[in-house]
Amino acid sequence: MTIPPEARPALDALRAQVAALHAELTHYELVIWTAGNVSARVPGHDLMVIKPSGVAYDELSAERMVVTDLYGNLVEGDFAPSSDTAAHAYVYRHMPEVGGVVHTHSTYACAWAARREAIPCVLTMIADEFGGEIPIGPDARSAVKAAVMLEDVARTVHISRQLGEPVPLATEDIDGLYERYQNVYGQHGGPQ
Amino acid sequence: MTIPPEARPALDALRAQVAALHAELTHYELVIWTAGNVSARVPGHDLMVIKPSGVAYDELSAERMVVTDLYGNLVEGDFAPSSDTAAHAYVYRHMPEVGGVVHTHSTYACAWAARREAIPCVLTMIADEFGGEIPIGPDARSAVKAAVMLEDVARTVHISRQLGEPVPLATEDIDGLYERYQNVYGQHGGPQ
Amino acid sequence: MTIPPEARPALDALRAQVAALHAELTHYELVIWTAGNVSARVPGHDLMVIKPSGVAYDELSAERMVVTDLYGNLVEGDFAPSSDTAAHAYVYRHMPEVGGVVHTHSTYACAWAARREAIPCVLTMIADEFGGEIPIGPDARSAVKAAVMLEDVARTVHISRQLGEPVPLATEDIDGLYERYQNVYGQHGGPQ
Amino acid sequence: MTIPPEARPALDALRAQVAALHAELTHYELVIWTAGNVSARVPGHDLMVIKPSGVAYDELSAERMVVTDLYGNLVEGDFAPSSDTAAHAYVYRHMPEVGGVVHTHSTYACAWAARREAIPCVLTMIADEFGGEIPIGPDARSAVKAAVMLEDVARTVHISRQLGEPVPLATEDIDGLYERYQNVYGQHGGPQ
Repeated sequence: MTIPPEARPALDALRAQVAALHAELTHYELVIWTAGNVSARVPGHDLMVIKPSGVAYDELSAERMVVTDLYGNLVEGDFAPSSDTAAHAYVYRHMPEVGGVVHTHSTYACAWAARREAIPCVLTMIADEFGGEIPIGPDARSAVKAAVMLEDVARTVHISRQLGEPVPLATEDIDGLYERYQNVYGQHGGPQ
Repeated sequence: MTIPPEARPALDALRAQVAALHAELTHYELVIWTAGNVSARVPGHDLMVIKPSGVAYDELSAERMVVTDLYGNLVEGDFAPSSDTAAHAYVYRHMPEVGGVVHTHSTYACAWAARREAIPCVLTMIADEFGGEIPIGPDARSAVKAAVMLEDVARTVHISRQLGEPVPLATEDIDGLYERYQNVYGQHGGPQ
Repeated sequence: MTIPPEARPALDALRAQVAALHAELTHYELVIWTAGNVSARVPGHDLMVIKPSGVAYDELSAERMVVTDLYGNLVEGDFAPSSDTAAHAYVYRHMPEVGGVVHTHSTYACAWAARREAIPCVLTMIADEFGGEIPIGPDARSAVKAAVMLEDVARTVHISRQLGEPVPLATEDIDGLYERYQNVYGQHGGPQ
Repeated sequence: MTIPPEARPALDALRAQVAALHAELTHYELVIWTAGNVSARVPGHDLMVIKPSGVAYDELSAERMVVTDLYGNLVEGDFAPSSDTAAHAYVYRHMPEVGGVVHTHSTYACAWAARREAIPCVLTMIADEFGGEIPIGPDARSAVKAAVMLEDVARTVHISRQLGEPVPLATEDIDGLYERYQNVYGQHGGPQ
């Protein structure tokens, strides 16, 4: 497969964005060593941009990102793609609404998941951001933001529950907070 | 509304101070992503300086701060104000003694709050700083300092209580510590 | 003992690598003050490269590393070797398959060890990396990577167990994850 | 009181050392805001060097340190001394064997102290460093090192005890570890 010329501008922008988003994973300590990765779908093309395998986070750059098709075959890049490429590709093939995927080893989120437990809605931040379930990421930045927010609320609710029972928010309050926040946050009238 | 010329010097100093205080929030990990903000009242005027909405903390500067009236209407600035502007403005309208407001998602403080529990006074730092209840901030710097101190004591008392019962300080000791500290700390004979 | 000329290239490369690996220990907060160290065997020679004793991590360099024989006798270097040299040397003498040794004071790993408890396999990362027991490090980089991964899983499983029982992975899933990961990770078809 | 000329070289060296040691307190997160301080006795003179009150840690320098007598009276410096100067001075007057004092708000150490509990000796690092009780600091650097080590073991033992009972070390092992470590660590045959 070759890259259609009309995909080039979006693809190059995504190379830079995906490289930069990995810095958020290390900043918020959602990954260690090389054990996590971000990818983005190239909108309108059966292509994705993903981290190279085994390359340290502080050595990533737009140029070092890897482009594959949606079966994980290498299309462009000097490195082998992430060892998790097949899983990212599977999501893009089966869920057209997904534009970005992030794979972390977030300590508190994994701690809840290892017990197969959902996080109760006891903080306004959970209501603001998620309303109910953790949302699907329409693009790579939204996916990373959701991962950062998720770990933060997973940590706070964990710590709260260590010494007693946090009080759940009322359903109508959750709905009201979510509605409000989705309309006023950011420079264009909604979350970005 | 226009800005009275005599408000300009204080307003420009507050733009710089409010921008700089956001760096304390990230330094002490009281916020993630763009989920927190500081504002300051412009003394003697119905104006406030606040963070722009959705702008990353490391991209803030004095110039990018936003000035609104005490109903949250934009008065000066290139960005939309924080999505929390209405809440800050409400405080300034109803509590004239408040000169600064800080909004964080402090992990340990939120963990106590989610259980609707007060933090017992078992550390001399609590006695020194707060005496009893968490004080109102007369200005933005005092508000941020109180938020930093609050999270620190919320964390230490939480950890102490995980393995038993911390011993409360005697009321007369709390009063003595508070009295002493309010008089000797800083370069001018009291906390700043 | 003198250093055979044919050992020089490998030895100088190991000096640089061992110095650099100490930065991973501080980055991941596996050590404090000067309380941890890394060493590497010089392949094919009865020599090892190790940290100098009592020197701060941010003052380490390739030149400051110390070379000893496998009884801990100084062979080359301007400093006394680590106070733990005898223990490293003992391992190299008795376990020829070991090419690198790392000594940390990892908080969560030590917390499990102080209770004389093994960490249950409840996370895919444990299955991917370790399969079962913590592996021996064939070289210094592998040893440091294993220490970083170990602390991460020790922390996550600790936190998960604080509020209930994490669910163990099935043995066949552990085997499958380990097999897959050992073959696809990195730029050369396996972990590095 | 004036400063005897023969005290000048030691005093100037201590100004630089005390300023630098404050960076260890922030690096290891033993303090927040301006809530901690280090001082050093000027050997052979009734003088001490201490942090100025209310000055941020990243604005400290050798020049900004304050010199007082052992009753806390200002002898040299452009700032008021720390609000804790009287407590430091009291220690130097009554305990001639003390050469340095460090005041922190170490989270885990304070958590144990708030319960009025001693930390059991269940880690080799405790045996190596302390043997038994936390030692008095002969100088400011030793005092800061002890504070860093203390917080580390306070944290690890806390975390270990959260999920069960750590196993105490045998008394003869503690004695042996302490003996060994005091003789082999550092560049001069003992801890520095």
